[in-house]
Amino acid sequence: LDNIVTEKKAEESHRQDSADLLVFILLLTLTILTIWLFKHRRFRFLHETGLAMIYGLLVGVVLRYAIHVPSDMNNVTLSCNVNASPATLLVNVSGKFYEYTLKGEISANDVDDIQDNEMLRKVTFDPEVFFNILLPPIIFHAGYSLKQRHFFRNLGSILAYAFVGTVVSCFIIGLFMYGCVMLMKQIGHMGGDFFFTDCLFFGAIVSATDPVTVLAIFNELQVDADLYALLFGESVLNDAVAVVLSSSIVAYQPEGDNTHTFEAMAMLKSFGIFLGVFSGSFALGVATGVVTALISFNFTKLRDFPLLETALFFLMSWSTFLLAEACGFTGVVAVLFCGMTQAHYTFNNLSPESQDRTKQLFELLNFLAENFIFSYMGLTLFTFHNHVFNPIFIVGAFLAVFLGRAVNIYPLSFLLNLGRRNKISSNFQHMMMFAGLRGAMTFALSIRDTATYARQMMFSTTLLVVFFTVWICGGGTTQMLSCQKIRSCFLVCCRLKYSGLFNASCLMMDFLCLRLQIGPDGVERRSTKHESAWFFRIWYNFDHNYLKPILTHSGPPLNATLPACCGPLARCLTSPQAYENEEQLKDSDSDLILNDGDITLSYGDVTVSTDAAGAHTSGTPVGGVAVNSDEALDRELAFGDHELVIRGTRLVLPMDDSEPPLPLDSHRHRHKNETMS
Amino acid sequence: LDNIVTEKKAEESHRQDSADLLVFILLLTLTILTIWLFKHRRFRFLHETGLAMIYGLLVGVVLRYAIHVPSDMNNVTLSCNVNASPATLLVNVSGKFYEYTLKGEISANDVDDIQDNEMLRKVTFDPEVFFNILLPPIIFHAGYSLKQRHFFRNLGSILAYAFVGTVVSCFIIGLFMYGCVMLMKQIGHMGGDFFFTDCLFFGAIVSATDPVTVLAIFNELQVDADLYALLFGESVLNDAVAVVLSSSIVAYQPEGDNTHTFEAMAMLKSFGIFLGVFSGSFALGVATGVVTALISFNFTKLRDFPLLETALFFLMSWSTFLLAEACGFTGVVAVLFCGMTQAHYTFNNLSPESQDRTKQLFELLNFLAENFIFSYMGLTLFTFHNHVFNPIFIVGAFLAVFLGRAVNIYPLSFLLNLGRRNKISSNFQHMMMFAGLRGAMTFALSIRDTATYARQMMFSTTLLVVFFTVWICGGGTTQMLSCQKIRSCFLVCCRLKYSGLFNASCLMMDFLCLRLQIGPDGVERRSTKHESAWFFRIWYNFDHNYLKPILTHSGPPLNATLPACCGPLARCLTSPQAYENEEQLKDSDSDLILNDGDITLSYGDVTVSTDAAGAHTSGTPVGGVAVNSDEALDRELAFGDHELVIRGTRLVLPMDDSEPPLPLDSHRHRHKNETMS
Repeated sequence: LDNIVTEKKAEESHRQDSADLLVFILLLTLTILTIWLFKHRRFRFLHETGLAMIYGLLVGVVLRYAIHVPSDMNNVTLSCNVNASPATLLVNVSGKFYEYTLKGEISANDVDDIQDNEMLRKVTFDPEVFFNILLPPIIFHAGYSLKQRHFFRNLGSILAYAFVGTVVSCFIIGLFMYGCVMLMKQIGHMGGDFFFTDCLFFGAIVSATDPVTVLAIFNELQVDADLYALLFGESVLNDAVAVVLSSSIVAYQPEGDNTHTFEAMAMLKSFGIFLGVFSGSFALGVATGVVTALISFNFTKLRDFPLLETALFFLMSWSTFLLAEACGFTGVVAVLFCGMTQAHYTFNNLSPESQDRTKQLFELLNFLAENFIFSYMGLTLFTFHNHVFNPIFIVGAFLAVFLGRAVNIYPLSFLLNLGRRNKISSNFQHMMMFAGLRGAMTFALSIRDTATYARQMMFSTTLLVVFFTVWICGGGTTQMLSCQKIRSCFLVCCRLKYSGLFNASCLMMDFLCLRLQIGPDGVERRSTKHESAWFFRIWYNFDHNYLKPILTHSGPPLNATLPACCGPLARCLTSPQAYENEEQLKDSDSDLILNDGDITLSYGDVTVSTDAAGAHTSGTPVGGVAVNSDEALDRELAFGDHELVIRGTRLVLPMDDSEPPLPLDSHRHRHKNETMS
Repeated sequence: LDNIVTEKKAEESHRQDSADLLVFILLLTLTILTIWLFKHRRFRFLHETGLAMIYGLLVGVVLRYAIHVPSDMNNVTLSCNVNASPATLLVNVSGKFYEYTLKGEISANDVDDIQDNEMLRKVTFDPEVFFNILLPPIIFHAGYSLKQRHFFRNLGSILAYAFVGTVVSCFIIGLFMYGCVMLMKQIGHMGGDFFFTDCLFFGAIVSATDPVTVLAIFNELQVDADLYALLFGESVLNDAVAVVLSSSIVAYQPEGDNTHTFEAMAMLKSFGIFLGVFSGSFALGVATGVVTALISFNFTKLRDFPLLETALFFLMSWSTFLLAEACGFTGVVAVLFCGMTQAHYTFNNLSPESQDRTKQLFELLNFLAENFIFSYMGLTLFTFHNHVFNPIFIVGAFLAVFLGRAVNIYPLSFLLNLGRRNKISSNFQHMMMFAGLRGAMTFALSIRDTATYARQMMFSTTLLVVFFTVWICGGGTTQMLSCQKIRSCFLVCCRLKYSGLFNASCLMMDFLCLRLQIGPDGVERRSTKHESAWFFRIWYNFDHNYLKPILTHSGPPLNATLPACCGPLARCLTSPQAYENEEQLKDSDSDLILNDGDITLSYGDVTVSTDAAGAHTSGTPVGGVAVNSDEALDRELAFGDHELVIRGTRLVLPMDDSEPPLPLDSHRHRHKNETMS
């Protein structure tokens, strides 16, 4: 009989879990349907993530105030006194043994809450779920879809923003918040401990920017590729930096009695941890990526079985995360670099079908995980029980976040502009300042540990920062873009194809679009061969001559690029097939650079639209693989400019709803259609 | 300091978890690479699932015997005496509260084991993982990829095998096993209780057949479509029947003292539960499918955003499972019928890109889940701690399984043949008998509860049954097919396209293939219009005239099929778009029927191969949508026959390895290529 009762309880609990998860699924479904409506109506003031948060908030309110489930007291009331808290506990109930697993510590004042709010507790996920299940696909997708060419072109600046910028921002915010905390202590607004390390930790977690909403609009409006690369690259890398930075700050533990004073050794140790964990995760991620590339390079017949290929790709990418976590590195960081390596090398070895499949798979996972996190964020504002909202801290945090971003962007941009030929203009700087949104990573870092008073206050404040930035900054992106006169082109679309008519509004929009983008000087700046950074050039040469031939079927055969003395080694590393396929298989990188030519614009040419239909038939020249890397680089850059000319002659979609819009998500397909027509 | 220790422990535990999961991921990776090798070498004696089991066994042996991790005694030794076993336990450790969740009961003699085998315990998953995470995508995929036309053609027989057959098999096996148990009790081989309900439960769980290995070979060898539909349909539906049957048997609880005697009321109640749960799950699954179809029907512009469409499809399908579980029905069964409804209706409303995406997504999930389950099966033979291997029970079980299958197939086929025009021939019956493999569902049902002696014995025996059937029956499929002279055609392939040469071996293989398939009488039997079952005809008419127009963009407009008096209703239900699109959008069902014409054969025509290249250019006639359903049915059947003629003139791939094989998995693509050429 006792058994049956236990089974009934387990069943009841399972039902409840299913119902709770169902709430989230329905939330996501609702979000998708509304997003579709927004996309269909070209309503750009609210991104899907912002919408998911609003729905989450609504459901949170309902769960908190409208539903009261009488708690099953039997379920939770028991307490027993033991001397330690093992991970597994065996409980002896009149001769029967039951196994219990540790879920976590609960602060003493929550014990009553737990008994009261069975329902709210149920919809609260283990914070580690975010780190171990939801973040990895998001971060991997970011790495996998990083626009390769523009990323590498701006690599120096991106690294500067991501490393120097994040560390600077972290310390500025930390110092500023420490001032606030001191003030709060003075006027007695502080209800618990709040040390300098806590301030720094707060600085680290809110330094992780996540301009997903901004980038979505950039993508839709076809904003400048360099700006896109700078923002996206910075946000992706500073997530990684912030994760490692925050864990190094937590690891700062001076020895001796006073554990919250400055100590050089502990500081050095933290710094060592930062370097060790970051480089370890980086190495692991790159290593798994390279292994996958080598497998797909050597098992070429795997291309005949896209299912196996995709499964292998997925498993190898996942194993990066697990391996890093098992080794004590940071899985999320490893996954990011694994994604970048996969995009750069493995992607070229995959069959076209697998290329599509992997991209679509991670796109879907990213979409679901992201919206889930944001709707959970909305929900948790009402369902989390230990919120500590302190007005001074909140106002301080907003100021600090603003200040931190400003000190990150403006001085760094100034310094970078000293070295850059293709300067980061002031309107770009303002836009980057504006696009310092906080999102999934900040949330995941702040919810990870909400045990102490300081952490609870940080969590509550972080939620508000995320809400504000996503709604206000995300929603104002279009306005900000036009205010800053940053060139953007409303969705490029062969309208003639659909309507069969030439529409006057089309020409007008085109003209408006031109005016908007060319800017005051009327001449577009393009990076040319001579402007490309030395860093990029060195990297490109090494990559093109040695890495690509070893890891992919693209690039020149190794013995053409290695010195003569290395001939045997080159023959050994280059498969005979590489020579055979040399002509067929070309570098698919261009495929990854979605925004390359698309962004550029047909300036000063108002007769554009009349010859639009014909212009595309000329197609883009895709030659063989050049042996000389300089030549290849030149060609690649020239190729970009050539594309500019061809793609420039293109129509612009007017803002009415009567036309079926082209799929915004599937850039590539439009691309294909054009080359086919 | 205490906090830090807890955190360290949690981190250690997380690392260990990551490492364990990594073992499985690497196992799957290894399996994939080996499968690829097998596929490449056309080695058909071992299917991927069989291989996954072997690798699982090897890793199990290593974990069990080669690795000894000294257990952290601190972790598990504590016991405390309380009076009940609540789902959540609060433990008061010197003023701090820790929350523990119930994992399950442990038999008293395992308490020492637990402390010994930390490592083995770690690689043991919660059995509910199989039911709630791994099985749903497998079952959904089965429903989604069910070959619609042949399935409905044989619906009566499939339902008979699935319902009557499974129940008969369950009782036969139960009775036989009860005899064995009696014998064991007589000779004192029984170490615990084993009631008749336990025997019936065993009968229910081993009645779920899973001929995944056989069907994979059928697919590769292009075996008869009716046989394929019979086997696949039966196995898919009998999984559902077995799940509900086993839960009804568990629910059999006579009142009063003697809980293991026969009682009519309890029996009726069990029967009621069976009917209620099955029909409830069925209704829920179909309902969610219909809702998804309606959404995709009405939100037609959703087609422009394949990502949103795919995400919506995925979420709606998942919510079926959760909804069913939350309502107390069986999620797995609901998911099956949801998948079938989605394939029949929603699939037609999706954009072509989403059709591909959803198919590929569920194909991948199915592949990963299936191989994971089978490798876990191998592993658990060594890592599970409470195996009870009883020779009499095992031998009895093998006999019972054989007997149960025989009593299921032969008498039922005899009865069905009385009503069928297109008889199920005796070699088909032998093949169905042979293909009664046990797989993932049987395993998941048996591992769900291993608390009692009886259940442990069942679990151990079930594992052996699965191993034997998957390896022996799965491996012998090719032999059995040729032994039973069942027509199968080695992979159809336009060899000329690849080699540019006409190969003598090609002709020879073709000839052999013909001989094999035409059989002794030399005339192929084809189902014609007159042979199609009345059940199928009624269903087809209703579906074609009323359901398809309401739920999809295919089929005739409703007001053409409804009586004149229902005119307003018809106009209301049919969107104006349906009329517009009437011509463009055709029923994509033919897409789902992969094996339709492909299986049929060019008999008596040995000059086949010479005109093969030209024959395909004629293409398949795809007309508009016929308003009269009889006409449509006729055309559809005739169309199948027409395809027979066209596709019959096709080359057969010889058995050498030098040629790059066409992707076996992507039938559809080959199909496309043919129509394009």
